[in-house]
Amino acid sequence: MNGLTLEELCGKYGCERVSSHENQTLFTGVAPLSLAGADHISFLINEKYLDDALVSGAGVILCARDVAEKIVDKTSALVLACKEPYVVFARISQFFFKPNHSFEGKSPNCHIDISANVAETAVIFPYVFIGPGAVIGPRSVLYPGTFVGAASMVGADCILYPNVVVREGCVIGDRCILNPGAVLGGDGFGFAPSGMENVKIPQIGGVVLENDVEVGANSAIDRGALTDTRIGKQTKLDSLVMIAHNVVVGEACFIAAQTGIAGSSVIGKRVTLAGQVGVSGHVKVGDFITVLAQAGVSKSLESPGYYNGTPARTNKDYLMQLATLSRLAGSKRPGAKSTKENASE
Amino acid sequence: MNGLTLEELCGKYGCERVSSHENQTLFTGVAPLSLAGADHISFLINEKYLDDALVSGAGVILCARDVAEKIVDKTSALVLACKEPYVVFARISQFFFKPNHSFEGKSPNCHIDISANVAETAVIFPYVFIGPGAVIGPRSVLYPGTFVGAASMVGADCILYPNVVVREGCVIGDRCILNPGAVLGGDGFGFAPSGMENVKIPQIGGVVLENDVEVGANSAIDRGALTDTRIGKQTKLDSLVMIAHNVVVGEACFIAAQTGIAGSSVIGKRVTLAGQVGVSGHVKVGDFITVLAQAGVSKSLESPGYYNGTPARTNKDYLMQLATLSRLAGSKRPGAKSTKENASE
Amino acid sequence: MNGLTLEELCGKYGCERVSSHENQTLFTGVAPLSLAGADHISFLINEKYLDDALVSGAGVILCARDVAEKIVDKTSALVLACKEPYVVFARISQFFFKPNHSFEGKSPNCHIDISANVAETAVIFPYVFIGPGAVIGPRSVLYPGTFVGAASMVGADCILYPNVVVREGCVIGDRCILNPGAVLGGDGFGFAPSGMENVKIPQIGGVVLENDVEVGANSAIDRGALTDTRIGKQTKLDSLVMIAHNVVVGEACFIAAQTGIAGSSVIGKRVTLAGQVGVSGHVKVGDFITVLAQAGVSKSLESPGYYNGTPARTNKDYLMQLATLSRLAGSKRPGAKSTKENASE
Repeated sequence: MNGLTLEELCGKYGCERVSSHENQTLFTGVAPLSLAGADHISFLINEKYLDDALVSGAGVILCARDVAEKIVDKTSALVLACKEPYVVFARISQFFFKPNHSFEGKSPNCHIDISANVAETAVIFPYVFIGPGAVIGPRSVLYPGTFVGAASMVGADCILYPNVVVREGCVIGDRCILNPGAVLGGDGFGFAPSGMENVKIPQIGGVVLENDVEVGANSAIDRGALTDTRIGKQTKLDSLVMIAHNVVVGEACFIAAQTGIAGSSVIGKRVTLAGQVGVSGHVKVGDFITVLAQAGVSKSLESPGYYNGTPARTNKDYLMQLATLSRLAGSKRPGAKSTKENASE
Repeated sequence: MNGLTLEELCGKYGCERVSSHENQTLFTGVAPLSLAGADHISFLINEKYLDDALVSGAGVILCARDVAEKIVDKTSALVLACKEPYVVFARISQFFFKPNHSFEGKSPNCHIDISANVAETAVIFPYVFIGPGAVIGPRSVLYPGTFVGAASMVGADCILYPNVVVREGCVIGDRCILNPGAVLGGDGFGFAPSGMENVKIPQIGGVVLENDVEVGANSAIDRGALTDTRIGKQTKLDSLVMIAHNVVVGEACFIAAQTGIAGSSVIGKRVTLAGQVGVSGHVKVGDFITVLAQAGVSKSLESPGYYNGTPARTNKDYLMQLATLSRLAGSKRPGAKSTKENASE
Repeated sequence: MNGLTLEELCGKYGCERVSSHENQTLFTGVAPLSLAGADHISFLINEKYLDDALVSGAGVILCARDVAEKIVDKTSALVLACKEPYVVFARISQFFFKPNHSFEGKSPNCHIDISANVAETAVIFPYVFIGPGAVIGPRSVLYPGTFVGAASMVGADCILYPNVVVREGCVIGDRCILNPGAVLGGDGFGFAPSGMENVKIPQIGGVVLENDVEVGANSAIDRGALTDTRIGKQTKLDSLVMIAHNVVVGEACFIAAQTGIAGSSVIGKRVTLAGQVGVSGHVKVGDFITVLAQAGVSKSLESPGYYNGTPARTNKDYLMQLATLSRLAGSKRPGAKSTKENASE
């Protein structure tokens, strides 16, 4: 049976035993504190759930060292400490839940151009189309309805979920995950207006995803006009995100749902754009910046920190302006706390 | 011929004759007041169109009792009163316009895993993929390019329009409609950052749609992290809506286009989220709340009523703040009425 | 080899030689100033790049007459002047980059209803579904996974990229381009609430795209309730745009990414809606109006010019209000310039 022992948790995952008691259980899964049983590994990352930990039936509770000290004497669970408990939780979850694609080999009902190069170990579901000169790397999995256009390259160990489209001339690194309906390489939005006509400017760049990029369901990354649109390694895009032509996103960013980045903008590394953020065209967002939900970045931002509002300013300025407006209007500070007054119009 | 008589309108649909004259017409369709002819049924729901009713050539005009009294002596149309004329209009429209899928049976060009259980009366178009252990209920229709993953269940009388994706482990109730390109069960957005790496947290929950849910075109409902993402019965989602992992939406809600709900938030019953609304993660929106377009809910909202702005506050407070700002800046109150002044920059 | 001579540039594209020297080169491509070589045609449209032009290795630089005068004595490139250099650039790019679909004829692995009418010169990839009575015009290209429903018509010279869905009863003009995943004719969002039930109102209108319309990746244009949703000729929609039922958009508009237009609104001609704009239902936006990014149009706008904010007001008023708020709060004017101060919370 698939499981982990205390020894493996310490040896492979860098956990340290804080509880003094022995434990020979084979732990066979992960679960939230409220649902976990004696053979489950659970996690206390947010101290707000400390009370839940004390009454949890979990066999193991993983947490940071300082948190561990607070609970170790009040729980019968085996308390293990580690430096990055959320990361360890993620890795242990990965051990228990490997993707199972429930299909093997290459369906006879797919279309692979004779000039395409598909690795022997790739999995090709029915109704997949792979164009001329395309390359599919080892162990990559292409679900039904995926399309890989001419001369596009998909690296090793990628997953293209159903109905993903990668148009011609795109490059996808290794271990990328494209959720259902994601589109790479749609035409960028480039037209030259002339009278009542809009003359299309051919979009001849591609899209490059570096290694370990994930793209959410129904997101769209447009192809570049003359050069490529590019997403840096380890960057993760949520669902319904829109990346316009020529945008360059750095490494390890988080781009939350329904965010859009307009043409030719450049995003640094470890940037977080929260949900529904908009970034104008031709601006730069520096490294380690977080832009909060629904904000609109209309000018370049350089200093690391938090930004908010439209047009985006420092979060401190934004909050001060909100409070000022609220005071002047004689109303409660917006969003200060859960509103309980009657909101009927 | 497919039609309804006066007797049927009164008997089956609860209408009451307000006009005194007889009418033996077989009414054969619905039409707006301005286009309706003598064999059409039309509707007066918004009194702003009262004048249109008086000159309409419609055979029948459906309206509320008080409205009927106002028009009955001024039109030759048969005036019928009912309690919920918009609902009756909807039901009569349903009588005339039943979906016609123009395909029958099961295409030989689809892939149904041998362990899947597809009802005899289900309609399966070409290029459909149904994974191992999946269940498709009676009379459900799966259009081309739809994907139903392993162990997912689709209830009775559902319609999955072209290129809908239902990944593994999801459950769809009866009479659900998924518009083209809708994605259920894409991976939730969960990663643990570690240095310049973002470690993926497997998303092992599913998505549950209760009965009579509709999902708009290209909307995305992500699968839960450990538990399910859930949409309550009779709730309707518009196009390009994003529901993140672990969200629970109650019964009979309306969620308009391009709205996004971040992870683990809980939405009550009969909630309306207008277009492009954003709801932050881990908040609650109480029953009978309406959040107006483009608002951003960053804290929990409890009292029924109207909310607006980012961060969302009562609509009353929001409007007062807008007016205050406008006054202080010496400009017109924004949006007060159709702006006719010159807006050139 | 595919190329253009000086004579062709002047004769076919209306360029005028400003440099005095002769040039017999066959120009074989376009490139940005920074990358162009002696056989490339490049472009100087924005004077901010004037210095780049002076050091460019480009064989030809296209620009407006006044700009040409400024650079002609300082570059060895052949300087050509024309009235609309961006338009000429677009047309020359089109000469060099004709779409190459890397597939010909009609795949045997597609489903064409026997009552459909598909032009002999149309290109039909595998896994395409064409319903009863549908019409596909000459030279149109339908990529894999596209769906054209019953009685829908696609004009001549259209491109439907992979997984595009055109449901029943829609009409698409000539030379339209539908990027991957675009959906036309999903059900409009129409329900009549009754207690805890939401009764569906059948959506029986269609969608009409006039000639030369482009629709971006994963955009959704809903079908009309009783009449059609309509997009005027030469109008271009970006990715993830949402057009609700009964909306009418005029000619030659630009609708940028993630913008949404609610039901029954009417948009004039040459309107620009920037990214993430929202337009409420039942309003009118007049000709030649530009609504700036993230703005929300809640009332009709009539005068040409720029509008901004939610609710949308003239951009002048919007900027004045922003400045006022900023002054009152004692903070920097938001977005005034690239923010360099520390933004840490």
